[in-house]
This record gives sequence, C-alpha cells and structure tokens, in this order.
Amino acid sequence: MRVNTSRSAESDLEQTMTPMQQLVDYVGADLGTVQALMQERMSSHVSLIPKLAGHIITAGGKYFRALLTLATAKACGYQGDRHVELAACIEFIHNATLLHDDVIDESMLRRGAPSANAIWGDKASILVGDFLFTKAFELMVGDGSMEVLAVLSRTASLLIEGEVQQLTLMHDTEMTQDDYLSIIRAKTARLFSASCEIGGVIAKCSDEQRQALVDYGMNLGIAFQLVDDILDYRSDSLTLGKDIGVDFREGKMTLPVIYAYRSGDEVEKQFWQRTIAQCEQEEEDFSQALVYMQSHDAFNKTGRLAEEFVSKAQDALAPLGKDQPWGLFGAVVASSVQRTY
Amino acid sequence: MRVNTSRSAESDLEQTMTPMQQLVDYVGADLGTVQALMQERMSSHVSLIPKLAGHIITAGGKYFRALLTLATAKACGYQGDRHVELAACIEFIHNATLLHDDVIDESMLRRGAPSANAIWGDKASILVGDFLFTKAFELMVGDGSMEVLAVLSRTASLLIEGEVQQLTLMHDTEMTQDDYLSIIRAKTARLFSASCEIGGVIAKCSDEQRQALVDYGMNLGIAFQLVDDILDYRSDSLTLGKDIGVDFREGKMTLPVIYAYRSGDEVEKQFWQRTIAQCEQEEEDFSQALVYMQSHDAFNKTGRLAEEFVSKAQDALAPLGKDQPWGLFGAVVASSVQRTY
Repeated sequence: MRVNTSRSAESDLEQTMTPMQQLVDYVGADLGTVQALMQERMSSHVSLIPKLAGHIITAGGKYFRALLTLATAKACGYQGDRHVELAACIEFIHNATLLHDDVIDESMLRRGAPSANAIWGDKASILVGDFLFTKAFELMVGDGSMEVLAVLSRTASLLIEGEVQQLTLMHDTEMTQDDYLSIIRAKTARLFSASCEIGGVIAKCSDEQRQALVDYGMNLGIAFQLVDDILDYRSDSLTLGKDIGVDFREGKMTLPVIYAYRSGDEVEKQFWQRTIAQCEQEEEDFSQALVYMQSHDAFNKTGRLAEEFVSKAQDALAPLGKDQPWGLFGAVVASSVQRTY
Repeated sequence: MRVNTSRSAESDLEQTMTPMQQLVDYVGADLGTVQALMQERMSSHVSLIPKLAGHIITAGGKYFRALLTLATAKACGYQGDRHVELAACIEFIHNATLLHDDVIDESMLRRGAPSANAIWGDKASILVGDFLFTKAFELMVGDGSMEVLAVLSRTASLLIEGEVQQLTLMHDTEMTQDDYLSIIRAKTARLFSASCEIGGVIAKCSDEQRQALVDYGMNLGIAFQLVDDILDYRSDSLTLGKDIGVDFREGKMTLPVIYAYRSGDEVEKQFWQRTIAQCEQEEEDFSQALVYMQSHDAFNKTGRLAEEFVSKAQDALAPLGKDQPWGLFGAVVASSVQRTY
C-alpha cells in the first residue's frame, strides 16, 4: 500500500497505521534490502561477529535512521541503489555506538532482550562495535562519493565528541539546558540530520532543500532524544524494551533532572548531589526521584520543549513543498513525541 | 643528516645510529609535522579528548607506522604533503586500537607510564578510542583519494576482525601456529603493510613496486608481532615500557605458549589448561611458565620464525632496487627482531 495524495485514502491510512508504519510502507521493499545488506556485510569467518552483531541488529530496532535515508531519497525523486548502502552504513554507525553505549552504561537490557555485553561480555561488545564502525566506513567508501564521505565522517566524529562530552559532564549537577542540548545535538540529532541530508544529496536536491533536510533531521533528533530521556524514567521495561531508570542508576544528568535540580529546595539538591553527583543510591531513591521530578513538572517541561523542536522540524519542511510525502515526514516527527510523557 | 649512498658515510652512520634512528633521520622534519598535525586534529572543546589522546600519543611511542609511510613515500620519490596526513591517519588508527586493547587486556601500564584506562577509566578510553578512529577517517577522507580510502578502510576492518578472532581463540590451548599467524597478520601486520603501501600509492609507484611494499610491510609486521609476543615474557617493564607478563595473566595464547603446550608432557598440559584455558593463576605460575617455555626452546623457535619473516621482508624489497634507502628498510626489519629473545 502506498501513501498517495487523495484525501480519503489518507484518512483511511491514518486510521489504520501510525505515521512510522506509513513511513515503513512508503519505502516499500528497500528496508528489507537494507537489512539483508547489513546481514551480508557483517558476515565473517570469525563467528562471534555475525552472532553478536546479529543480536543487536535484528533484535527489534526501529531502523529509524535507515528509514529516514530511504524515505528522503525517494521523496526527493532518487531512483538508484545508493540509498540502500548508505542507510545500511548509517545503521552500522548507530549500532556500533549502541554496543559501546551499553558497555559504558553497564546496561543489561536492550530492546527487550539481554544486551550484547550481558551475553558476550564487554570485550566482545567493544570490538564488535569497532568492527561495525569499520564496516560503516567500508560501505561509505564503496559508495564512492566524497560529498557523502565528508558528511558521514564528520557526523561520526561529532557524534563521538558528544558522547565524550556527556561522559565528562555526566554527574555534573550544574549542567545547564544549553550544555544538555549541545550534547544531544552531537550525540543523537546529528546522525538523524545526516540520515536525511544524505537522502537529498544522492538525489541531487537543491542547496535549499538540502538545508531543509538537515534542519528537519536535527530538530527531529533533538525531540527524539528528549522523549527518550523522559521515557527512561517514565516507561516500563516491557514498553521501552530496555532497562528503566538506567540514566538515574548511572547518575546521568538529563534534562528532566536538570529541571528538577534547579527548582529543588536544599533537601532536594542534597538528594541529587548524593544520587547523581556522587552516584550513591539506595533502593527507594528512584521512586523519590520521580516524586521530586513530577512535583517540579520536569517531565512536562521536557515534553513541551520536545514539542518546540517538533514544530521546528515541521517548519523546516516548508521548502520541500506541501504535497505528500512531506506531510508524512511532519506526522512522523509529531508522533515521535507522542510516545509518552 | 641524510642517508646517502657513499659507502664510508653509510658505515659511519651504522656505527652511530640504529637502523630505526637512521629511518627517523631519513624522513627529516616530516615526523615532527605528523606529530603536530595529530595534536591539532585531536583538539576539541571537550577537554578530556586532547588530554587522554595526548597522553597515549605523546608518551614515547615509536611512530613506526608513520615512519614507514613517510619513508616509503620519500623513497618512491613522492614530493607533496599527503604522506604527512596519511601517516597521522595511520597513527590515529593504531592509537585507537591501543586504547581499546588496554581496556580489553586490563593493562595498567603502557610505554612506561600508567595506561589511559588506568588514569581516566575504561569508559573514557573506549570513547576517546572511538574518537581517534573517526578522526582517522576524517583525515583519509580529507586526503580525497578513493584508492587510499579503499586500502585504509579495508585495513581497519581486517584489523578489528583479527582482534575479535584473537578474543575468540584467546584461551584456546588447541590454537595452531596457523591460527596465530592468521590473527597477527590481520591485527598487526596488515596495518604495517598498509603504511608501506600508501607511501607507494601516493608516489604513483608501479604495481610491482606497490606489491613489494605490501609484502615488505606484511612480513615486517609479522616479525614485529612475534618479537613483541616474546618480549611480553622475556623483557622487563622498564625496557618494554609496558607491563610484563600481561599476555600470560590474561590467559592469552601466543606462539611461545603454543610451542610450549604442544611439546609439553601431561603435567605441563594441565598447567597450561589451568593457567591459560581457565585463567586460574597463582603467584609463582609466571616463573613456572618461563621454565616450561625455555625447556622447550619456545622463545628461540618463535625468534627463528620471526627471522624467517625478516628474510621474506628483505626479499620483498628486491623489485625496489638495491640502492639506498632500500638497504635501510632491510636493516630496519632485521633490527626489529634483534630486540631480545
């Protein structure tokens, strides 16, 4: 089934499919081709590699970044095969960072299953993460475009820089909203932005359209990460598919904590100093954290900020026109915030 | 001072400088330019990055791989600046793997100083290792040659594959010499090989010369790793600049252990099963391991194999001619084995 521009068909679709499902539908068989290519490129005579990489890659990921590359390429009128290889490349970068993140965060659950490090240990996860990075680079080199290579190699470098910045400021209760936004722009939003930009680049879109895709992806990525940080406190592990309260247990400053800390009284500030800055926690601290955060409206404030970025992402689409499928891109970003807060 | 082809000048040099020092002398100011470029490229607004990366990069490394790129480029008549950027790129790849290796091996000492993970922790070392990887890719993308990108991205991928294979077979006392050689070809020798190949590629050498450089670097790399594995048992931490006995404590199968295990009687096999396969060790086990290894001539056998690869590396130089500086390349590989065994 295809998204088309007839109003009644649209309404039917909206009733039966979420915007994300519509996006999956829009890219058709390409997503399956990306998944098959990833399987092929992570094969190795060293059997641990496809086993461990396959575990993280096939375990129910959303392939959101791949979808963005496939869909933006198609929406910009691209006709070839390069979008498939580049979508696989971007997913490899993303999954490499997930493997390393789970080691760093000591996460034992990912997408509803034991994390790779929980099964195969930290050492294997570090090296197979490295392997996926190098395979991502092989894929982009194979694509053969210096323009694409420049975008993706820069993105990978900024992504890691953002991760190091987060590690540095992790327990710093004085972290500001600006620090936080700078970190998530680099570590999350920039890859969303590149995923969209690449779709336009290979379709030879105009500079104005390319900038629109960059801005759309960046604002979508920020909104996505904001909601992710809410869900880490508010969801349950069955819905979220990963451990709940990981950020808190790690003593990680995220925006809801920044809001709660800044609005808190002396007792609350001491609570956050102990649990976040010194990472000294007891059983009931997570529930107490939720109470403090709710009392200062920290989740709603974070959610409202996410909605601002949703609007920015939607506004960014303007130069791309009002016809479908661009309306679908607007709906996708809105739905990414409606997850739960 | 320059290496020149006059016989008496050569003899003078040989009396005063090791072949490695002659190689450093041969590349002149270029090595300093590589080091300055590395400093520049690892700068970041996230201060932990230059601090941690600077620690590993400036702490007395040999820059052997950078030297090979600089020297092969010069020896092939290259005149531009690309060799400097690509040498920096190769050193970034090497240092990224060192950071991850030290986390994986739980090494607390590197080049005579506390390892980065000992100072800043595993998490920081993992991420800054990732950062150096991405900076390496930015450097090679900046170089702008698809031919170079193909060599280096493939090399990085095979290097990591070799590391995973080593991790998989690490405690496997049934590991064969062939398994071992396959691992060190991938994890060590391939980057030496690429370091030499790239020098020839940018100098637009002939296919025959390029293959000679590939073979030279590969055999040099194998010999280098064999000696490294001997030194891990035989040196002392002051000379080696890193912990002694790390491989043994980690229960890592290397060639001297393969030889000792295969020649050992039942009591010895049980010793290796306990200390390597199960990694259950007591204080005096390392001394006992040395006794068993020496009694089966394991170090000399490994050293003799290293010398075979030295000969292969020297033979590989033939298509490049007999004049200097190629004689120096032959001397460099010979001296890399004469370290200690």
